[in-house]
Amino acid sequence: MSEVMPESKNYLSTSTEIRVTYAEVDRMGVAYYGNYMRWFEIGRAEYLRARGKSYREIEEQGYILPVYEAYARYRESALYDDLLEIQTIPLEIGRARIKFGYQILRKTDATLLADGYTVHPCMGATTKRVGRFPPDLIQLIEQAPLV
Amino acid sequence: MSEVMPESKNYLSTSTEIRVTYAEVDRMGVAYYGNYMRWFEIGRAEYLRARGKSYREIEEQGYILPVYEAYARYRESALYDDLLEIQTIPLEIGRARIKFGYQILRKTDATLLADGYTVHPCMGATTKRVGRFPPDLIQLIEQAPLV
Amino acid sequence: MSEVMPESKNYLSTSTEIRVTYAEVDRMGVAYYGNYMRWFEIGRAEYLRARGKSYREIEEQGYILPVYEAYARYRESALYDDLLEIQTIPLEIGRARIKFGYQILRKTDATLLADGYTVHPCMGATTKRVGRFPPDLIQLIEQAPLV
Amino acid sequence: MSEVMPESKNYLSTSTEIRVTYAEVDRMGVAYYGNYMRWFEIGRAEYLRARGKSYREIEEQGYILPVYEAYARYRESALYDDLLEIQTIPLEIGRARIKFGYQILRKTDATLLADGYTVHPCMGATTKRVGRFPPDLIQLIEQAPLV
Repeated sequence: MSEVMPESKNYLSTSTEIRVTYAEVDRMGVAYYGNYMRWFEIGRAEYLRARGKSYREIEEQGYILPVYEAYARYRESALYDDLLEIQTIPLEIGRARIKFGYQILRKTDATLLADGYTVHPCMGATTKRVGRFPPDLIQLIEQAPLV
Repeated sequence: MSEVMPESKNYLSTSTEIRVTYAEVDRMGVAYYGNYMRWFEIGRAEYLRARGKSYREIEEQGYILPVYEAYARYRESALYDDLLEIQTIPLEIGRARIKFGYQILRKTDATLLADGYTVHPCMGATTKRVGRFPPDLIQLIEQAPLV
Repeated sequence: MSEVMPESKNYLSTSTEIRVTYAEVDRMGVAYYGNYMRWFEIGRAEYLRARGKSYREIEEQGYILPVYEAYARYRESALYDDLLEIQTIPLEIGRARIKFGYQILRKTDATLLADGYTVHPCMGATTKRVGRFPPDLIQLIEQAPLV
Repeated sequence: MSEVMPESKNYLSTSTEIRVTYAEVDRMGVAYYGNYMRWFEIGRAEYLRARGKSYREIEEQGYILPVYEAYARYRESALYDDLLEIQTIPLEIGRARIKFGYQILRKTDATLLADGYTVHPCMGATTKRVGRFPPDLIQLIEQAPLV
């Protein structure tokens, strides 16, 4: 059980699949640790899409969610050609900040390979200033049923 | 001043330069957050080399230092073609585990762009089991003068 | 119509989908040209899997297919969050060498974004010497129905 | 001797060093083929900088040089921690198009690891239309002494 993503949650999670490519594996035969950041990105992009609005649409609406903090803990290795599951859930939703939690599992045996989180302020795409989430966006992240 | 890397330290730090490439910049015009993990890798590789033994040589000696934890906090953006300085220092050296701290600064104005850390167990390259650092390696990391 | 992948072919092609991530887009807002090489890799991996044997299994059988040549022509830009289709087909199958052709299309409007090819000698995984394809592998690539 | 970069040339070449990181090496222990595209980018960026104007400045002047074609031939493997030399030279300079040639060598023994080229139209940064190189830029690429 992951400490980063506790069992009881108020929010729904989404799940996405990716397959480990040759490009992502290092000479120990395991996925390079930096790639998990890209997998976390895929996780939160698919979370938002599943709630009804893609990150591309959020940017077009005038908001960006840059990464302020990122953390990952590596428990087991992801191997070349492994099929992985990325589980994503909001851990905290503030007025101007959101924290996403992630778990990376190997599909074939449900082993937890890594978990982690990222923290994102809500910023104006043009102003580059931190501000409150627009109401429709926060509602979408919090309450929208999965589409 | 970075909280991750406190002012008073017992160990010496090393400094490495890299330049932000087009490949590393995203459509906000700033370096993608996952790239900092690779810059941290460059930082600790150059730290070890500066102490007298490259990570390649450590692996040839039969030890690997996989990443168990990685954390980064992003304060300011690194832009395309920016010349960056990676400062690396051991934060904690245990019997079987080392924690490296990093600061990424923009060279032209010494702005702190990001800081973070990584945690590495010492493992046998073939056994893949955690074990104590060999004495020569811990001595090298802790005390060897910079070459 | 792509010149790299002529209309009449003796081999069957396979098709795979990927979505352009933030990590892959540069500050012109379009996918960085180097990423297409990774997409080509995904294409040929899925081609082999669709014929019945993954590249991981081919390596376990004792053969590797390193890249000797790679070429790409970039016609239109792939944008952030675009859903792409990778079409892969063997262009030439020699006794000790295979050439794969690729087309990258945007799914929503079927625009051809890029095409290219890669050339791979057949090598022994341990000997690192070029040799003939084993009969079962060449038969698989050439004739096996899609699974 | 590289066929891509013939011995007699009218233009001067520049040379840049990079070191192969863990992130760039695959499970065969050699640099992943897609990374050479980023190394080619570093090569042409340093070529332009050495002539007196960085690519960042060219973009600020209103011009972009997107990649239209890219080709690489992989002769020998680049290994983890190898120190590489990127040699870059213009192969053809047209009124609205430039072709750069590259050679990647291992520094320690001067082995030619790979060579290749990229082709770039000159485009307006805002118009996204192909146009002639501005006279100062073509003069810079062709004739400026190395700074």
